Amino acid sequence: MHFSKRVEFIRRLVQAGAKQKLVHALEKLGTLQSARILRQLRAYDQKLFLEVLLAHPLLDQILLDLSYEALPEVLAHLSNEQLITILSRMPSDWDWSFLEQLPQEKQQSLLEQLPTTQREKIAKISQYPKESCGEIMHPEAMSVKASALVEEAIQTIRQADPQLKVFYLYVVDEEGHLLGTVPLRSLIRENPETLVSQVMLGNPIAVRALDARTKAAQMVAQNKLLAVPVVDEAHHLLGVITVDDVIDIVEEQATEEMYHMAGLSKDDRIFAPWWRTARKRLVWMSLNLVTAFLAASVVGLFQQSISKVVALAIFMPVVAGMGGNGGTQSLTVMTRALALGEIGGREVWRVLTKEVLVGLTVGAITGLATGLIAWHWQGNFYLGFVLWLAMMTNMMIAGFAGSMIPMTLRTLKLDPALGSGVLVTTFTDVFGFLTFLGLATLFLKYLV
Amino acid sequence: MHFSKRVEFIRRLVQAGAKQKLVHALEKLGTLQSARILRQLRAYDQKLFLEVLLAHPLLDQILLDLSYEALPEVLAHLSNEQLITILSRMPSDWDWSFLEQLPQEKQQSLLEQLPTTQREKIAKISQYPKESCGEIMHPEAMSVKASALVEEAIQTIRQADPQLKVFYLYVVDEEGHLLGTVPLRSLIRENPETLVSQVMLGNPIAVRALDARTKAAQMVAQNKLLAVPVVDEAHHLLGVITVDDVIDIVEEQATEEMYHMAGLSKDDRIFAPWWRTARKRLVWMSLNLVTAFLAASVVGLFQQSISKVVALAIFMPVVAGMGGNGGTQSLTVMTRALALGEIGGREVWRVLTKEVLVGLTVGAITGLATGLIAWHWQGNFYLGFVLWLAMMTNMMIAGFAGSMIPMTLRTLKLDPALGSGVLVTTFTDVFGFLTFLGLATLFLKYLV
Repeated sequence: MHFSKRVEFIRRLVQAGAKQKLVHALEKLGTLQSARILRQLRAYDQKLFLEVLLAHPLLDQILLDLSYEALPEVLAHLSNEQLITILSRMPSDWDWSFLEQLPQEKQQSLLEQLPTTQREKIAKISQYPKESCGEIMHPEAMSVKASALVEEAIQTIRQADPQLKVFYLYVVDEEGHLLGTVPLRSLIRENPETLVSQVMLGNPIAVRALDARTKAAQMVAQNKLLAVPVVDEAHHLLGVITVDDVIDIVEEQATEEMYHMAGLSKDDRIFAPWWRTARKRLVWMSLNLVTAFLAASVVGLFQQSISKVVALAIFMPVVAGMGGNGGTQSLTVMTRALALGEIGGREVWRVLTKEVLVGLTVGAITGLATGLIAWHWQGNFYLGFVLWLAMMTNMMIAGFAGSMIPMTLRTLKLDPALGSGVLVTTFTDVFGFLTFLGLATLFLKYLV
Repeated sequence: MHFSKRVEFIRRLVQAGAKQKLVHALEKLGTLQSARILRQLRAYDQKLFLEVLLAHPLLDQILLDLSYEALPEVLAHLSNEQLITILSRMPSDWDWSFLEQLPQEKQQSLLEQLPTTQREKIAKISQYPKESCGEIMHPEAMSVKASALVEEAIQTIRQADPQLKVFYLYVVDEEGHLLGTVPLRSLIRENPETLVSQVMLGNPIAVRALDARTKAAQMVAQNKLLAVPVVDEAHHLLGVITVDDVIDIVEEQATEEMYHMAGLSKDDRIFAPWWRTARKRLVWMSLNLVTAFLAASVVGLFQQSISKVVALAIFMPVVAGMGGNGGTQSLTVMTRALALGEIGGREVWRVLTKEVLVGLTVGAITGLATGLIAWHWQGNFYLGFVLWLAMMTNMMIAGFAGSMIPMTLRTLKLDPALGSGVLVTTFTDVFGFLTFLGLATLFLKYLV
């Protein structure tokens, strides 16, 4: 079914107040699709949608799957009481990620109305720095004492909230220090009379609450885990980060990388209001303007030559454009390799040499084509020759800049992708014009 | 410990032939780190490394975690017999992804030496199209008949290969059609005397063997699953794709997206030999050259004006550069939103309008700054005025092109990121020069 038809279908169910059918249809679509549909509805239908589903926990997941620029708009339809209804039935790792997205004053007034235990728990989670393991963990890691038997461990799982995601059982000592992990399947496989401490895997991989969440993602991905426990500095078990969170983190990391390359701020998402987007982009584009003037002033140096040979102006975009795209290619390859942890140590030099060599080769060949075209178009051999030399040089510089910039940023302990797109094109513009117009000036008497 | 120190540490263990210590150290580092270290070793040490670890299954995972350009180089150290040793102990979903990366003739000769059952299984898997669910699935999904009891299901798991990853037990009918799923924890929770068909979740989410693997990734991520079953057209259970594969897919998808934007081919990885990289990039850069000449010919149209007002050549890079970066920003936001399935239907127009509006705003402000600078630098008010108008227009076009191009590519059933970076800068170069030099020609008498 086409998307707009789906929206229409859901809209009708909403207007008919057909709760059962609506729940069934939304369950089939999945919560992400449902969230997309909710966003598409007009304000009046959104309000109805929320009212019909208010008593159903499916609504919670749908709201969480709304992109967070769309959330305030949708939540505006709900009274504080209705919000409390939703919040108090949410599993403990959701309520904070939900609250977090509301305006500060709303957060405060809602918190005050929540039950004490939930309020205290949220207060604890919200203390951790943004995007730390502590902030995103599920605070109820299921654990047993090392002295327990396998059958007691199984009992613990049987009695737990069936909503809780359990992938491993964590083994702790009397003070709550993390000692080991027991995968669920080994509980099934082992003799019920065995001690948990005998079946557990010791030296468990864990992250600290203050670590960046990307660390947890790395641990889970590299070690093919289903979850990683979160501990404090003294190695007390605090919570757990599960593999489905990791998928989200990996996706967000990729988004951030692309955004940083293009000089975009993380919140510049598709549904952010236009004035906020414009304001954020202005900052970066102003910086970009400065670098553009750098390129312009290089051209300014050679005003004399251009006034004598206007054809130079025609080929400026070719030299700059090819250099910019070549540099972006090297940059993309390098940035991705750094992000995926593919290179390190001595390899850096090998990669740098390779990119320069590739730039030289590609520059020599495309430059030759450009030179030949220019020679025949403008009827001047030397113009073609200068273009060839300039493009070869600039593509070589592009390979160098494209691979050096992310490595340098990383050495400076910055994000290797940060604004790298603009930096690379500045490099290739400046050096492209410098070599092309510089060489042209040297050969000026043959060009006129 | 610093990376190069780690390499040195491992190299010493390898040279001492200290197998136990080596295994212990590598297990602590994780297989991905170990693979990176292996790659860093000199040929002689690589050979030793392989020999010391040959009998240990840890080696298999390390080899699989080598980036695939590095694999042939490393495997060249091994005889066919040694390769067979490794292959025949690999779990069934690894052997193919391993073999696949070897040269065709080597593949053939190795296949012939493998046990018949393994050979037949590989023949089956390798029939599926590249990057389909069938090709990447684990062919042993653990299943029970619907008529089994929970305790029998538990027995099945107890008896299975402990290496096998089990997240769900799949329930099939007598002919092997997929009927439902049982999460492991509900096996633990349920009464052993219950029928499996009573505890299973019906209507299981499944993918078809011929579906693209990205479909499996989407299913797992959106529904927060640990694994998704793979079925044939008649809904027979064939295998399973697990969440750790999904993390790899998500990462590769992000890489592909960035690569496509920059016009890079997927195999243009950091360790591919330079001549292969150069050859691949040449294709795209030749196309890019054509588009660059499009921009050049636009400038050619206004040769007359430039020869009269050389200052125009100075500001060309400013107009083009700002437009290019603005367009890339819109492009990045739109491409990511499409890849993450964030938009659809009517929203497309809302986003387009927004990007155009943002472009206009940012263009108006940065254009004003540019205009003022140009006025004072060149002492001509009209030059500044023309620049302001041109930048405003070009940034508006950049917002339009940046969001239209990926949407158009998608409508044409192409990858929305395919070469979009070059397309956008072509747009902004061509229209930037057209508006700037066009307006300048209109106002020419005030500029001279």
